[in-house]
Parts: sequence; C-alpha cells; structure tokens
Amino acid sequence: MSKIEARLAELGLILPEPIQVPAGMVLPFSWVRARGNRVYSSGHIALNQDGSVAQTLGKVGAEVSQEQGYEAARMTGLAMLGSLKRELGDLDRITAWLRVFGMVNTAPDYNSYPMVINGFSDLIIEVFGSDIGDHSRSAVGLAGLPFGTPVEIEAEVEISG
Amino acid sequence: MSKIEARLAELGLILPEPIQVPAGMVLPFSWVRARGNRVYSSGHIALNQDGSVAQTLGKVGAEVSQEQGYEAARMTGLAMLGSLKRELGDLDRITAWLRVFGMVNTAPDYNSYPMVINGFSDLIIEVFGSDIGDHSRSAVGLAGLPFGTPVEIEAEVEISG
Amino acid sequence: MSKIEARLAELGLILPEPIQVPAGMVLPFSWVRARGNRVYSSGHIALNQDGSVAQTLGKVGAEVSQEQGYEAARMTGLAMLGSLKRELGDLDRITAWLRVFGMVNTAPDYNSYPMVINGFSDLIIEVFGSDIGDHSRSAVGLAGLPFGTPVEIEAEVEISG
Repeated sequence: MSKIEARLAELGLILPEPIQVPAGMVLPFSWVRARGNRVYSSGHIALNQDGSVAQTLGKVGAEVSQEQGYEAARMTGLAMLGSLKRELGDLDRITAWLRVFGMVNTAPDYNSYPMVINGFSDLIIEVFGSDIGDHSRSAVGLAGLPFGTPVEIEAEVEISG
Repeated sequence: MSKIEARLAELGLILPEPIQVPAGMVLPFSWVRARGNRVYSSGHIALNQDGSVAQTLGKVGAEVSQEQGYEAARMTGLAMLGSLKRELGDLDRITAWLRVFGMVNTAPDYNSYPMVINGFSDLIIEVFGSDIGDHSRSAVGLAGLPFGTPVEIEAEVEISG
Repeated sequence: MSKIEARLAELGLILPEPIQVPAGMVLPFSWVRARGNRVYSSGHIALNQDGSVAQTLGKVGAEVSQEQGYEAARMTGLAMLGSLKRELGDLDRITAWLRVFGMVNTAPDYNSYPMVINGFSDLIIEVFGSDIGDHSRSAVGLAGLPFGTPVEIEAEVEISG
C-alpha cells in the first residue's frame, strides 16, 4: 500500500467517485492535466461518496455557514485527491503542492474566505505532511460558482518523473 | 503552411488583429509571456476582426444570454490564438494546453458558467485535437470584468524547445 | 548590495515586515512556495511598514477611489517583494516575472480594473526593468477579498537555479 493511501486509511478518509455530471452538461476538459513534472487540477467542488454534487449549496455568509464552508472545502480536497489518484495512479508520486486557488461563493457582507479555504489546506497538510503539503494560496470571494456550490478550488502540484 | 494554420483555414476561422486599447489606457504587460517550455497567456476577451472590443457587453444571465456568452468565449479563444501566434510565430509549437481559467461576468442568479466557457474549450479541441488541446479548467462567476466584457479567459500552454 | 536592493533604495522604496495575521486566524500555507526554477506567490494585499493590514479598505468604485486602488496595488507589490526576499534571500535571483493575477474588490458599477492593477505592474517594471519585469496579467473584479482589502494579487516568477 502506498504511503498516502495508508495515511488516508489511518485518517478514515475515503475518496469519492468521479463527479456525476448532470444530464445534458458536457465538460470538454480533464479534471487533471499532467505534463512533465507539473500537474494542473481543474476547479473541483464538494462531492458525495457516489460522485453526486454535495447538497450544501449557496453562498457562504448567507445560506451556508462558515463551518459548512470549511467542511465543503475539505470535501473539495477529497474530490481533488480522487481525481489526482485516478490520473496519477499513486498519490505518492506527488512531491510538492505548489499553488492552491480557493474560491468562495460569497454573500455580500462576508469576507473571512481564509477560514473557509483552511478546510482544504488543513486536509492537504494532514495527508501529505508539511514538507510536501505546503503550498502558496489565495482565498477570495466569487460572485458565483457552478451549481451554486459554496467552494471551488483549483491547484497545481509537482510530481516525480 | 503549418498544421494548425491549415486547420484554422479548413474551419474558416480568422484570428483577429491585436486588441485596440482605448485611448488613455496603458497596459504595461504582455499578452503572452513565454519562458522555457511554458507560455502564460494574459486574460483575453472577445474582439472583432479589427481588434476592437466586441460589443456584446454585460452580464451573462442578464444583458447577455448563455448562447451569446458561449460565442464570446469562442471569440476570446480566437483572440488568444492571435496573441499566441504573434508571440510564438507558429501555433504548431504548442505541444499541450495545460490550464484554462474561464471567468464569466455574472448576473446574480446565473451559475451555468461551464456552458459558457465551453465555447473556448470546444474551439481549442476543434483546432488542436483532443491530445494537444486537452486542458484543466475552472469556469467561475466574476463580479465584474474590464470593459464590461461578458467573458475573460487566461491560460497556460506548453511549447516545444 | 544586490542590484535589485540598490534599485529599491534608489527609488526610496522600503519593503514591509511580514503580515501581522489577526489573533485567532491561522493561515496554514506559505506566502511563497519555490520549487525548481518556479516560484509561486500567494495572494498578497497592501500592508503598512510594520506588516499590519493597510487601512484603506472597501470596494474600488465605492469607498475606495481608483487612485487609492492603484496605490493599494503598488503597496501589494511591495508586500510581495518582501515575501519573495525573505524566501529567496536575494531578489536578484528572479530572472523573469511570468504571471500576475490581479483581483479588485469591486463596486457593482465599476470595471476599470486594469487602471488599478497598473499600480502593481508599474512597480514591477520600475524595479526589475522591462526584460525581467514583463509579465502576463489578468485584472478582474472580485465579489469580495479577505479583510475587505481593495486589491489582492498572486503571481508566478522564474528564478535561476
């Protein structure tokens, strides 16, 4: 068993199935694009175990609380790890997290976006440790996100040859 | 004739002239920045053939329909290909599309951003094919875009030495 | 003295101290992440000399004027240079600016984001010159930014081995 797989099991974390894209929606791109030692992850959102879109929807600071936003960011991380695993075969190939761009679907008067995106960063550090898991990050407020999801995150990571 | 040039001709596609920046506006950066085998494209918008800003302006879901947004995203792709061609000399040098960040100027209640940015992704796949043209992507709702343009897209691509 | 240090002194520019994160806020990521010859800068905001968050807060086009937004973008650049210097040791190691993503906390009817983010681009060109300092850029309107800051900017730069 790979080291990261073992760590996920130890933490009791299960990666969700690929996203179930709603009927009639075509998404002509890849969830993960790997070239050389760089891997680009598309914007991911929180999914249920079966890949359906998690139903905590709406704007953080309004329908969605900061705590629910944090949890959505964590679930977004699990969805992204699922995509990375399917593309890379083994998450142990990730040698460094580089860039995390955290987008929060925001109510007009809310701005504690870092507290929301921490749900993603905390997960990555827990799973990969602080050397590999460390990353640069932005956490900002978007006017809207697909499906009305409260959080969307894209990332870039480094892999070994 | 290069392969991509031939493909553009076959599809009847013409790349627009460089953007005509409005008088009094100085833009102290490059539309394309190439270093090593990576090329970074600035955020592009839809242009008319002569490089003037396309006049379908406003928010998708309000003044601009989803179909018009799709068309704007496609025109944004043509503008970006124009910039890439001027910088790289030959679009055949592009060996892989890597990252596409699609920004939609959104009305408050609209969120089908993927259907809009598909106008860009579909173009790239049509022109480059699915191997080179495949990419990671986010499609999200912005509170505003320069000139009131409905779509802005930035990207990163890989080139051969 | 390094070349860039000398240039900063010549321009009378002083880089601020590291950001003073408000009590109770944990930020589990790095302001700068360097791997190989690529350096990823987290989203930075305008800081006072002592690292406290600059108190020009609010939305550009409403509480914050375009001129104040330009100044905030310039101060954001100084804060980012401070982080880069602490991480890299010497700013002369930067061989090229690559990507600048400029985010403006926007009032509903404002959209001259390029005029705001020029505060950052102008600074980078002044300090690094047009060869190294040139960059790709997007300048777009966000629905909200942390602390209610008017401007946040993330970037990617190239360094020598």
